[in-house]
Amino acid sequence: MRTTFIGLGIMGSPMAANLVRAGFDVTGYDVSPGPVERLAALGGKAAGSVPEAVKGADVVITMLPDSPQVEEVAFGADGLLEHGRAGMFHVDMSTVKPETSIRVAQAATIKGIRPLDAPVSGGERGAVDGTLSIMAGGAAEDFTEMRPLLSVLGTTIRHVGPSGAGQTVKAANQLVVGGIFGLVAEAIVLLEASGVDPAGGLDVLAGGLGGSRILELRRHSMVRREFAPGFRIDLHHKDMGIAIAAARRAGVALPLTGVVAQLMAAAKAQGHGSLDHSALLKVIERLNG
Amino acid sequence: MRTTFIGLGIMGSPMAANLVRAGFDVTGYDVSPGPVERLAALGGKAAGSVPEAVKGADVVITMLPDSPQVEEVAFGADGLLEHGRAGMFHVDMSTVKPETSIRVAQAATIKGIRPLDAPVSGGERGAVDGTLSIMAGGAAEDFTEMRPLLSVLGTTIRHVGPSGAGQTVKAANQLVVGGIFGLVAEAIVLLEASGVDPAGGLDVLAGGLGGSRILELRRHSMVRREFAPGFRIDLHHKDMGIAIAAARRAGVALPLTGVVAQLMAAAKAQGHGSLDHSALLKVIERLNG
Amino acid sequence: MRTTFIGLGIMGSPMAANLVRAGFDVTGYDVSPGPVERLAALGGKAAGSVPEAVKGADVVITMLPDSPQVEEVAFGADGLLEHGRAGMFHVDMSTVKPETSIRVAQAATIKGIRPLDAPVSGGERGAVDGTLSIMAGGAAEDFTEMRPLLSVLGTTIRHVGPSGAGQTVKAANQLVVGGIFGLVAEAIVLLEASGVDPAGGLDVLAGGLGGSRILELRRHSMVRREFAPGFRIDLHHKDMGIAIAAARRAGVALPLTGVVAQLMAAAKAQGHGSLDHSALLKVIERLNG
Amino acid sequence: MRTTFIGLGIMGSPMAANLVRAGFDVTGYDVSPGPVERLAALGGKAAGSVPEAVKGADVVITMLPDSPQVEEVAFGADGLLEHGRAGMFHVDMSTVKPETSIRVAQAATIKGIRPLDAPVSGGERGAVDGTLSIMAGGAAEDFTEMRPLLSVLGTTIRHVGPSGAGQTVKAANQLVVGGIFGLVAEAIVLLEASGVDPAGGLDVLAGGLGGSRILELRRHSMVRREFAPGFRIDLHHKDMGIAIAAARRAGVALPLTGVVAQLMAAAKAQGHGSLDHSALLKVIERLNG
Repeated sequence: MRTTFIGLGIMGSPMAANLVRAGFDVTGYDVSPGPVERLAALGGKAAGSVPEAVKGADVVITMLPDSPQVEEVAFGADGLLEHGRAGMFHVDMSTVKPETSIRVAQAATIKGIRPLDAPVSGGERGAVDGTLSIMAGGAAEDFTEMRPLLSVLGTTIRHVGPSGAGQTVKAANQLVVGGIFGLVAEAIVLLEASGVDPAGGLDVLAGGLGGSRILELRRHSMVRREFAPGFRIDLHHKDMGIAIAAARRAGVALPLTGVVAQLMAAAKAQGHGSLDHSALLKVIERLNG
Repeated sequence: MRTTFIGLGIMGSPMAANLVRAGFDVTGYDVSPGPVERLAALGGKAAGSVPEAVKGADVVITMLPDSPQVEEVAFGADGLLEHGRAGMFHVDMSTVKPETSIRVAQAATIKGIRPLDAPVSGGERGAVDGTLSIMAGGAAEDFTEMRPLLSVLGTTIRHVGPSGAGQTVKAANQLVVGGIFGLVAEAIVLLEASGVDPAGGLDVLAGGLGGSRILELRRHSMVRREFAPGFRIDLHHKDMGIAIAAARRAGVALPLTGVVAQLMAAAKAQGHGSLDHSALLKVIERLNG
Repeated sequence: MRTTFIGLGIMGSPMAANLVRAGFDVTGYDVSPGPVERLAALGGKAAGSVPEAVKGADVVITMLPDSPQVEEVAFGADGLLEHGRAGMFHVDMSTVKPETSIRVAQAATIKGIRPLDAPVSGGERGAVDGTLSIMAGGAAEDFTEMRPLLSVLGTTIRHVGPSGAGQTVKAANQLVVGGIFGLVAEAIVLLEASGVDPAGGLDVLAGGLGGSRILELRRHSMVRREFAPGFRIDLHHKDMGIAIAAARRAGVALPLTGVVAQLMAAAKAQGHGSLDHSALLKVIERLNG
Repeated sequence: MRTTFIGLGIMGSPMAANLVRAGFDVTGYDVSPGPVERLAALGGKAAGSVPEAVKGADVVITMLPDSPQVEEVAFGADGLLEHGRAGMFHVDMSTVKPETSIRVAQAATIKGIRPLDAPVSGGERGAVDGTLSIMAGGAAEDFTEMRPLLSVLGTTIRHVGPSGAGQTVKAANQLVVGGIFGLVAEAIVLLEASGVDPAGGLDVLAGGLGGSRILELRRHSMVRREFAPGFRIDLHHKDMGIAIAAARRAGVALPLTGVVAQLMAAAKAQGHGSLDHSALLKVIERLNG
């Protein structure tokens, strides 16, 4: 199965490398030549343009920063809808608005291309280790055919509904993750302001009904104010924008999400865009002096 | 060690029973005679009043609904500060404001009584199974002496700071728990309004960075709209009031907590006081039609 | 000055009619022929297409529902940028995102067309009476030349900055208006739930530091639950979306605006889209039972 | 009518002075002797204690900082309920929780004392000029008898319901006022971050449906960042606490009020307690850098 991977950034590079290691025939393309060369050195093939990368591919995976890049690679004159063959799969693993995925999928379907939106969670670590969570939207049979390939990239792999559903689940994930960071930040600020050792307090929380993956993995670093990413505020801010837009499009009001989005915007406005999203703590702290 | 247990409600009764079973010499008292008789039937002793219960006790545990009951039992003419002997321990396991615990502890200390505030989380199930989380505030040496007794009641047992610190940690726990319920509710509403199967979507969330004890234990029942308690909205509403008051006293602003408290108040206003706190979902649903 | 008015809806029709009455040479166009004929009956001229309407015009005013319509009329093959002459004014009085106005203005400038974004507040009543507030963004000299024409349509007319600034001020206006409706709704719910006559209570508020145009005009109708528009929830929901997007683009976090936007979304989700925006009261009420 | 005024602070002193000037026989008392002497110099009488002040009075007005002082002056051994005569009026013009007023009123009624809660808005300026708004709770006939006296102190004077109703209306007033300050602050931050002159933008807002007393009086000082009180953040923070407590007691959820209370708490936490409440702008600014 000739597989093309477009977008070899922090996430895409290790994902493509994992496919190469698993024995897939992988052609890589990125606007920046360095990652393409590195993929070739691992045993992949280098492409110099989207049309070259897409020509003859059975599967095209895209892993791009945001909607404009996905739309350019999909709809552009040099794009994959123009140059891909009928019967080809397009698996978009970027995180974008559900409606972007739906528009790309509709156009793909018209061309006979089989679309899946399959955004991931788990961050750089999950990409490197092949332990991502992958939430896929699209036709069930397309998902079934792509499942073995996706299994190389992640451990939790679910078909969650029609086109766009993967993005909706990702949006739901990001609002929950952002919200828990905010809640833990408020807990830390309350404990410290009350003269209570936050580490001990959070240990108790982690062991009870308030326990969470975030408390497990991040409580010590948050208490020590270590905010090396991880997953950057800038990206989570982008994702909260997607969550707000997805709610708007679905016609629902989400009050906590509305506040979390503003707190994440504050983190970016305060200049913490390249810190880990746990740096939401800095926003709650700054609010208090 | 002669141990008195005051307050034999849904939580206190199984806790006192566990102490009896573990071989403690337990005297029970409650305003309602039924639970006292049942404790006696298990091998405890029955007291007919607070003074009778407290006289000669080495340890008095209180497990009461709210601050007014704690203050009555502590400060009243028939109260334990009046009738307890110097050297006695008072372990208040009720959930009340940190400042109530501090006031009770200060008065106890003057009388030579050794105070701990030791609220719990884990609900009725944790009380029955002896698997509560217990967060204790007070003098380290008092905690050390009480630890064996507390170990009968719970599994995670932590000394988190001076008097009031146990309540502060409990408040932090409840704001995080209430907040996660709100976030999961918003995720469910977003998924359903977008035509995505919520069960599948929450499975993915549960497996990733958004994972939490609440998703683990409650996502299926929430999607099915099963809201049998568990822990009642009424009680969580009381606890959010404590969290807001604790933040106010500590001089900190907690914006998400502020919204969560209002959502919990809405759950109560909508008549869901005796449902499980996961019924916060009903508030987010009602907001959307 | 040959003036073209595109978009003869609830707002545009009376505005165009006021220009006719003031002696302007007005050509009207709308996708629906009825309003065009009615304008012609008042002494205006009817155009059958945008190119026909724009040809030879000195000023083109657009008053359209949202960004897609503005972009179609501006950028379409049949659009005003294609068919307008160099030196023509384009005054867009629609409420759209600041960035839409900026993009339209940049393209206009390239063609030698002189752009102003000039959204209004004051509703249908203000359009009929010629008492709108008009907030204009664009070049100061263009504003100066258009001022006499705008004076026919409104009473408060301000140049507030470069292209997009008019829309930003409109967004600020709408977040304040939506927020005050929310606050007054919460005040009413608090008063009623406390057994206090809301009419008397709001009279006191209206006379003090909490006084506002909204209390002046709407407190009696809100207390009586009369929600005939006025300005519809649907439109205010659109405008809150613009406010949120404008804040995002400006890189600022606005926490109250974030909550107001969700409450307005709830009003729409509850089916109140065609009621007056004061129906935000219904959202706060429903939250409480 | 022998009138006693207890509490001669920033508000109480000019109010008592206005009564003296209007010809009332006024005895003053305060814990600090200075203001008592100054009132005597204006023609009032000085009392050295509450019992002395209350003895023989027909009306006792209290104007005190918060609930504890009101409860001390009402219920203390030296308090007015102990020393006042049956038939005396007690007009409490302090801002306290509705339930405090209700408790004081119930105890007063038992003693034959006629209670009104009559908090004010309008600030120091209103106190000096005799232009306060006064919202009174209590029996209608008691209000009617006290109305002439109250008319010396304010211009808008309303009976709004039974005991506690005055405080509820005050709470509603303060949540609206605090909220509008927050909304105007967000508008200013949005305008400035978008490169729009805030003064011009707010001028337009002030002239439209978003207009308010606050925009009228404070927009210029806010844009210039002049925060000399006026009414202090510390006091408004106290009042938001009362609003939150009043909502809780009335069993209603007020989401915007919940957020406004946290923003006001942030203003205090950031050290702006003695600035004017318009300094809420500093909180929104700090959130954004």
